[in-house]
Amino acid sequence: MPNPLPVIVQGLGPIGRKIAQAAQRDAGLDVVAASDIDRRLIGRDLAELDPDDDQPQALPSGIIVRPSLGLARADAEEAGATAPVVLHATGSYLSSTAPQLEEALQLGLSVVSTCEELAYPFVRHPEISKRLDALAISAGCTLVGTGVNPGFLMDQLVVALSGASHDIRSVTVKRVQDPTPRREPFQHKVGLNITRAQYDARAESGEFGHVGLVESGRLIAAGLGWQIDDWTDTLEPVQPNPDGLVLGMLEILEGTSPDGHTVRLHWEAQGGVDESYDEIIVDGTPPLTLRFIGGVFGDDATSAAVLRAAKAIPSAAPGLLTVLDLPLRARPAVG
Amino acid sequence: MPNPLPVIVQGLGPIGRKIAQAAQRDAGLDVVAASDIDRRLIGRDLAELDPDDDQPQALPSGIIVRPSLGLARADAEEAGATAPVVLHATGSYLSSTAPQLEEALQLGLSVVSTCEELAYPFVRHPEISKRLDALAISAGCTLVGTGVNPGFLMDQLVVALSGASHDIRSVTVKRVQDPTPRREPFQHKVGLNITRAQYDARAESGEFGHVGLVESGRLIAAGLGWQIDDWTDTLEPVQPNPDGLVLGMLEILEGTSPDGHTVRLHWEAQGGVDESYDEIIVDGTPPLTLRFIGGVFGDDATSAAVLRAAKAIPSAAPGLLTVLDLPLRARPAVG
Repeated sequence: MPNPLPVIVQGLGPIGRKIAQAAQRDAGLDVVAASDIDRRLIGRDLAELDPDDDQPQALPSGIIVRPSLGLARADAEEAGATAPVVLHATGSYLSSTAPQLEEALQLGLSVVSTCEELAYPFVRHPEISKRLDALAISAGCTLVGTGVNPGFLMDQLVVALSGASHDIRSVTVKRVQDPTPRREPFQHKVGLNITRAQYDARAESGEFGHVGLVESGRLIAAGLGWQIDDWTDTLEPVQPNPDGLVLGMLEILEGTSPDGHTVRLHWEAQGGVDESYDEIIVDGTPPLTLRFIGGVFGDDATSAAVLRAAKAIPSAAPGLLTVLDLPLRARPAVG
Repeated sequence: MPNPLPVIVQGLGPIGRKIAQAAQRDAGLDVVAASDIDRRLIGRDLAELDPDDDQPQALPSGIIVRPSLGLARADAEEAGATAPVVLHATGSYLSSTAPQLEEALQLGLSVVSTCEELAYPFVRHPEISKRLDALAISAGCTLVGTGVNPGFLMDQLVVALSGASHDIRSVTVKRVQDPTPRREPFQHKVGLNITRAQYDARAESGEFGHVGLVESGRLIAAGLGWQIDDWTDTLEPVQPNPDGLVLGMLEILEGTSPDGHTVRLHWEAQGGVDESYDEIIVDGTPPLTLRFIGGVFGDDATSAAVLRAAKAIPSAAPGLLTVLDLPLRARPAVG
């Protein structure tokens, strides 16, 4: 077993706390520092920030939340960690997270981020992508976006799975979730149990709904070598009774390459589903139909995806990568 | 789209023919040469060797089966292919395929092989592994074993999938197949519809049954970082009626690390199954239960796995690798 990989957790909202807790429980990782800009968190021991409530844990971790990544890195250096990897969970949109990512790279730190737009940023944010890639390469660092979705279930896993089928004509992915057992921000994000007027007002505000379905579609296309430039993306409220509450939302993304290869993604999160499930259908030779019984619980899966990507960082190339560019493990020497 | 990757198909039995045909249909690959030691095949056009029967196809491919890899490489060079990858499908056992693999590496050729024991050869064949790894590194070539099983369904996919769960305690994989629609060598291999006396005689001969379940178990353990040294492996005939025919076989492999992590693999191929299916259960956070409805048709999936690995070769490190060490795609430049 190699030495555990030192990591710094940046951003201690609900997902960041889950990542921190999961990383502390992972023998392959060593949480050496943490940072957040929230004054209510700065100076507190990481052990006090339980993912699910604010009850203090039995033992202090000794990791104190710092107000900046630079100060967190100083903690890491004091702990003897020369090349810690940043586990970054502060936001979904690259325009607001890019300055944080640039700072990390300028500090010489590799980053695994839950920023949804970072999962495949090259089309939506070409200039930021080039800048981050150049910065990462000159710093000898790796930057990659991941999470359950985008980052795993509707893209990376689809590409991995498609390695068992050739002559593929289309892939279809359905993610159907009951938001009821999820954390409140997620319920809010998908519009569970709100009026239609509230839904419409939020939809107009812009930052509403799931972020990253187009990123998933582009990851699949990149992984399968399909040139898809035009995507149709529809987002609609799920409102079974016109006079009743909105239960959530349904987003459908579809794109077809000029030579006839199609990606179809169906993302549904609403309180009226009978059972959560995820399904991947690969129309190729052989045909593959894969179903997750009971679905995949997103928050925990996102934490897991971040930890997995972090462990691949030491054997990854420098630059702005995608989850498709990471090996499944760090390669040990033979014999 | 980058230029297609040139490949040489070595070994034109049922699987090699399927690989050759699938590679010829793949825009990302270019079949430039072929070889086999079988006198009945040498000198024939690859197009005559249909995977499913011996009917000639409409158009000759211009690829003539050569008696040796050296002569096939000369064909490749004549076609302008400077670094073709060998798609090797000649046998399951490394003791007999190793000389062929060494020859390829000495010729400066990278190899993707269906040899089951090559999927994780480091424990069963440590000396051969070290020799092949050293040869590959000194030649700047990559050597990797893959296929549906071992190589994908019961190992690579399990490790990929486990990237969405943390604190994993155990993984269980069940592959249940009806051999009836498979090619005859597969039916023979699993003992479909033979007497118990015939079964016992074949079992004594040694080379009987599925090859590679232990390799799958070791790949999973390596991918998850679990130190499992002791495995129990049982293989039994499926014979519902003591006076009746054997319908096939059931192999069960199980191993647990000193710190309590367990891998369980169930491989069943017999004529009495209601429906083929594959199932992966990850006991972690979150728990994951994944099921392939109708199973995964092995021969086609093996071809696909070989093509996928071949495409990853240009961006892979030199040496004797496993499927866990390959990225999902060759990385393009940003921007």
